[in-house]
Order: sequence, then structure tokens, then C-alpha cells
Amino acid sequence: MSNYRPLSEAEAIEYARQIPELFSPGAELVSREIGDGNLNLVFHISEPSTGKSIILKQALPYAKVVGESWPLTLDRARIESEALQIEESLCPDLVPHVYAYEKDLALTVMEDLSDHVIMRRGLIEGNRYPLFAEHISRFLANTLFFTSDLGMNQQAKKLQQGRFINPELCKITEDLIFSDPYRDADTNNIEAHIRDAAEQIWTDNELQLEVSLLREKFLTKSQALLHGDLHTGSIFIKPDSTKVIDPEFAYYGPMGFDIGAVLANLLLNFAAQEGWSKDASSRADYRQYLLQTVRDVWTGFERSFRQLWTESGVDVMFSSEAYQNHFMSELLKDVFGYTGAKMVRRVYGLAHVADIDKIEDTAARERAQRIALAIGTTLIRQHRKAATIEEMIDIAAKSVS
Amino acid sequence: MSNYRPLSEAEAIEYARQIPELFSPGAELVSREIGDGNLNLVFHISEPSTGKSIILKQALPYAKVVGESWPLTLDRARIESEALQIEESLCPDLVPHVYAYEKDLALTVMEDLSDHVIMRRGLIEGNRYPLFAEHISRFLANTLFFTSDLGMNQQAKKLQQGRFINPELCKITEDLIFSDPYRDADTNNIEAHIRDAAEQIWTDNELQLEVSLLREKFLTKSQALLHGDLHTGSIFIKPDSTKVIDPEFAYYGPMGFDIGAVLANLLLNFAAQEGWSKDASSRADYRQYLLQTVRDVWTGFERSFRQLWTESGVDVMFSSEAYQNHFMSELLKDVFGYTGAKMVRRVYGLAHVADIDKIEDTAARERAQRIALAIGTTLIRQHRKAATIEEMIDIAAKSVS
Repeated sequence: MSNYRPLSEAEAIEYARQIPELFSPGAELVSREIGDGNLNLVFHISEPSTGKSIILKQALPYAKVVGESWPLTLDRARIESEALQIEESLCPDLVPHVYAYEKDLALTVMEDLSDHVIMRRGLIEGNRYPLFAEHISRFLANTLFFTSDLGMNQQAKKLQQGRFINPELCKITEDLIFSDPYRDADTNNIEAHIRDAAEQIWTDNELQLEVSLLREKFLTKSQALLHGDLHTGSIFIKPDSTKVIDPEFAYYGPMGFDIGAVLANLLLNFAAQEGWSKDASSRADYRQYLLQTVRDVWTGFERSFRQLWTESGVDVMFSSEAYQNHFMSELLKDVFGYTGAKMVRRVYGLAHVADIDKIEDTAARERAQRIALAIGTTLIRQHRKAATIEEMIDIAAKSVS
Repeated sequence: MSNYRPLSEAEAIEYARQIPELFSPGAELVSREIGDGNLNLVFHISEPSTGKSIILKQALPYAKVVGESWPLTLDRARIESEALQIEESLCPDLVPHVYAYEKDLALTVMEDLSDHVIMRRGLIEGNRYPLFAEHISRFLANTLFFTSDLGMNQQAKKLQQGRFINPELCKITEDLIFSDPYRDADTNNIEAHIRDAAEQIWTDNELQLEVSLLREKFLTKSQALLHGDLHTGSIFIKPDSTKVIDPEFAYYGPMGFDIGAVLANLLLNFAAQEGWSKDASSRADYRQYLLQTVRDVWTGFERSFRQLWTESGVDVMFSSEAYQNHFMSELLKDVFGYTGAKMVRRVYGLAHVADIDKIEDTAARERAQRIALAIGTTLIRQHRKAATIEEMIDIAAKSVS
């Protein structure tokens, strides 16, 4: 850490110039800092004469969220670059290529994805991505299977798990998802008009027991190398391409957490259609598209995952059909629980989602918030009884009927 | 590792002489190598003029089991000494004191417990240890609670987990307990007269599913720092003292594995009474003592563990009575499963127990083996439905009725 310093734009250009076989020697390079400055510096470096470009992402030694600032380990840059490289080895078309990682500067040089948009924005704009379900379910199946005891050498997995011990970033998740929303914590960010709903959750002992079980699994179930923050703001997309970015929360945890993150963010957008759709018909139509995507993500995941298992399973004790069926059915329960937990915290916890917060009409925003809470709490409450993805779709559909 | 060499007895004496404030300066010291030479050198160093003595335990870079020899990491000496020191900080009267650990030599200098006997031998001789249940349940409660997310800082726990990644020794357990006994593996060591029982297990799909679930938890449930090999051969005992030794298998795993190891070895001795008791009456009497000990270990553990939780719990989301009850009931299920798995492998897997193997009368030995298998397989089969420790006691009692 002694050599760490935040780069200036000129330094970023100098650094980029040294990457072999990228820019023309002596070329004029242009840099723009495009990060939001809360966690990282993000430099977009381009060579106007050829159109070539790359991203330099440098971790800052602190995090700023809603005005608060707290120190945050630079080791997350190592975790992010190593996770990206593992993901690239398993599904090269679905993550940005990493050109270089510089430990002292907490700096990762990666493929520029400026021709993509952040998926959250794409969904808010009402776009459809017909390839998304296939892409993300393949990403999930490959990264979760091949980093788990099902698909990789089990001794190598233990060593890999040791390299992804990630206490500081896990604590952010533990606090913001599995603790603070369930009590009157200072970090919560509650609009006055839905405070009653939050207060009800704080005294709901049955719901809290289910959340405790999800928290316990997040803390102890070392199943696979997770992305750890797989919301639609961590996905770059265009019609023919999906790229998962920003795995700085990567650690060994329960597979259902990553899958649930994807589904939760689809369902948050489903709730947010109260404020975005032009009329009832287009609203119903777009919601149908989102629910079909939820279905396709799970069924695509399950199909790919089972196929990988059958073709590439490494453990004879895990090779029976009965065990595979049991595993998938337990995993779906986790998915329900984590989908729900990921939704609740986005309504009145510290960090919201633009899908809901950017709805200007207060009444529509409140409706979206209450729909999101209704879906989220129902999924949490019922997660240990969940048996098919259709139940999740029914819960969502009923919340707006 | 470059400076590693196995010590001679003379070198062991020289090393011991340097430990501060132990032996008199210039004193005559005597060394005896008392290890079995399979995994470690164990030097007993004493000063005859004062009666002072210590143990030097040095890991060998290989393991020999039943004539086979394979390389084995010296890092296990670090793991053992660090685990002993953590255990000593939590229950100082129940483990040997560590005077020193020398990384290069994979050497731990610890308290001499020669006035104790190995508990397995004590039980084979028909001794009773009225303080044992209180001692071991306190050991289990303190070591499991205070190394888990319930009782220690959850970020420090993650870092500690990273220091106890223990792939090689975990693999021994994974193979010998959760895999090889469930198929016709070369490593199995099957007496011809019980081969039929083993073959039946190899084709019992229901049983194998339950074992797969226990294997999965052993691989992924990072609940607490386990001893990892807590059989009665890892316990030194005398009427007023119990000392747990040899935690070289320590890693972050499911709590029920350690508790199950203790109960399994009590029940293996229960089965072995076919060959050791003088007559039916003393057999029934000693078995009653063993079953009472099983009961006392679990109930003592549960009482201590719940008390620690209520007094020293660190997590507000884990503080409800409903969650505590749920946790204890899930833990008991794990205990049933691991108790059963630990019994089955000791009958015809690679490493048996002297309690059964040293029975000279073949018919009595076979009866003991079949009792152990009956108890073990029933516990595995029923583990997910287990609700009270009395069910385990009933299963054992019925196996000899």
C-alpha cells in the first residue's frame, strides 16, 4: 500500500501507454474520468485516431455512500480482478477482458464497454433484451458450478476460498441487507409515506426468523465463488451482448444469493412499472416480459447447471439423481429467500434503486415501493416451502392484481 | 521448509533446554521418543532430578497408515499449535499448554500429560469418568460458540477461517468418512465376515443420499473452528482431568461434526462391550454408563451453549429465542448424522478402533461390528428427523435388546 496514490488523468494515460500491444506507439491518447467518485476512479482512455479504448479502474481507500465516508480496503481491487479472470476463464463472452492488474495502485485495466448501457437504465427505459436470460443463466451456471465442490477440485476450492476471504465488503452486505432493514437503524433511508410498512417489518417475528436463517447462510454457507453484488447496475448490456462487471464483493457464499440478486432486480423493475409505463396495457405487457425473464433465468440456469453437473461433476458421492434433485430444490428455496431480502432493502434501506427512486410522482412511487415490499416479504416468508419458480411468478403477479 | 529436519533425541534435548524458565540450567535431561512414527515424532523430555517434563511434537512430512505412505503438509503443525492456543484461551484447563511453536521445524513444545491415559484405553479397561461429560461439553460449547458467528467478531472470524484452510487433512476425512465406506474402495479394510453388511450399504441409495448431505455440509458449512478429529484417542483423561489433544485436522466446519465424533466413540465402545464386559450384568451396567454419558454430553453442551449465547451473543439478528431454538434443533440433526457417519467408517473403513478390533473372540467382534453398523446406519438414515437426544439413546439401546 506504500506506493499507492490516486492517479491523475495524465498519469492514467501514461500508465495505459505501457500496456503492450494496445495503443499505437507515441499515439495521442485522451482520458476522461467517468466514475462517480464514491468508491473508485474510472478512467476511459482512448486513441482518437484508431478508436481503440480501455478502462482503468482504480480503487479509492474509502467509500462514500449518501454523504457518509468510511475507509475501505484496497484489497477489493485484487479480489475484483481475480474474480473477473476466473469468470473470464469460464464464460469469456460475458465479462470484460482484464488486460492488467497492478497491486500497488489497486488498479485494473480492462476492456471498454462504452457501447453497452447499464442494464438498470435499459430496463427503466423500457428496453427488452431477448438474449439476457440465456446469457445470465449461463454466467450463473458456469461460475457457480465450476467454483463449487461439484465442479472443481475440492482441495483447490479450499485454497481459492482462502483467497476470497472478503471481510469488509461482506460486512456491508451483512449490515445493509440482513440486519439494518429489520430494525430502526440509522442507516435506513425511509420515505415518510412508507414508514408504517417498515415499522411493521421491525416487529414481525416470523419474518425476522426467516431473515436470520438467510443471514446465517450468507455468513456460513461456503458453496461457490459468488459475484456478490449481481444487481442490474453490475450488468452492461446491449441487444446482442451481456457483460457482468464489478465483482468486488466476490466471496465464497450460497449460490442462491447471486441468482436471487438477478431476480430481485427484475422484480424491483416490475414493481417500478407503476411509474414508468405509459398506460395499463403497456405496463401489463412489460411486466409480462419481466416475469418471463424471471422464469427463463431460473429454468435456463437449472438446465445448464444440471447439464454441467452430469457432464463435469467431480464427486462420486454427488453423482446420484436423488442428490442432484435434492440440491436443486434446496437451491431454489435459497433463491426465493435471497430474492426477497434483496428487494426489501432496496425500498427503505441505505441504498435504493433508481427504478423506484426516480419515479417523480409520489403516489406512483409509493405504490411501487409497497408492491416491492409485498413481493419481497412474501418471498422471504415462504422461501423454505418454495418448490417451483412459478410460485415466485404468481406472487409477483398477485401483488399487482 | 528449507530448514526442516527430523530431530534426533539429542537435538530434541538441546531444543528443550532453550525453553525459558522450564528446566534447571545445565540440568541432565532424558529424552524418549514415544510417537508411533506414523505421522509425528513425539519426544518426552524430562529432568529426573526435579521431575519436570515436557512433550516435543514434530510433524513428519508424510503419513503412514496401514503400510501406505503419502506426503502430508508440515503446515498441520502450525494449524495444531494455533488451534491449541485458541482452545487454551477459551478453556485453559481442558487442553495441554503450548510453550512454543517453531515453524521451520514444524515443532510444538507442550505440557506433558503422561499422568493421563488415552480415553479409548480407559474405556476399554472399563473405567468410568464422572467428570468427563461436564468437561467435554464445556470444551465443545466454548470452542464452537466463541469461534462462530454467534460468539466472535464476524469479520475476525472470516480472517481466522482463512488461517485454518486445511485442504490435505480435510481430504483425509472427506475420503475416509464420507466417500470410501460407501463404495467398494481399495482403502476399505473389511473383515470377511461382515463384507455382506458393507455390500448392502454400497447399494442402499436412501442411506447414500443422507451421507451425501453430510458430506456436503462437511465441505461447505463454515460454522465454527472444529477440532476435526475429536475421537477418544484424541482425549487424555484421568478421574479429575480431561485434556483434548491433536487438533491438526482443525478447520471451519459444521459444529455437529465435533460433537458427533465424541458421541460416536462412546457408542463404538458401547458396541464393543460384546467383547470386553465380564458378564451380562456388568455389560448392561457399563452400557448404561455410556448411554448416560451420551445424554450428559449433549444436554451439558446444549445448556452451556445456550447460556453462552444468551450472555455473549454478538449478533442482534441471532438473538431471538425462536432462532436459537431453530439453531439447536438443526444442530442436533447434524449431530445424529455425524455420529452415525463416524461409526460406520470405524467398522470397515481404512482406520478402525481398538475398542472393536482388539476383541480377540471373532464371534464377539462380529457382534460388536454389527451393533456399531446398526446404530450408525440408523442414525444416518434418521438424522434429518431427529428431535431429542433420547432418540439416539433408544436407537443404541434397541440395537442390543
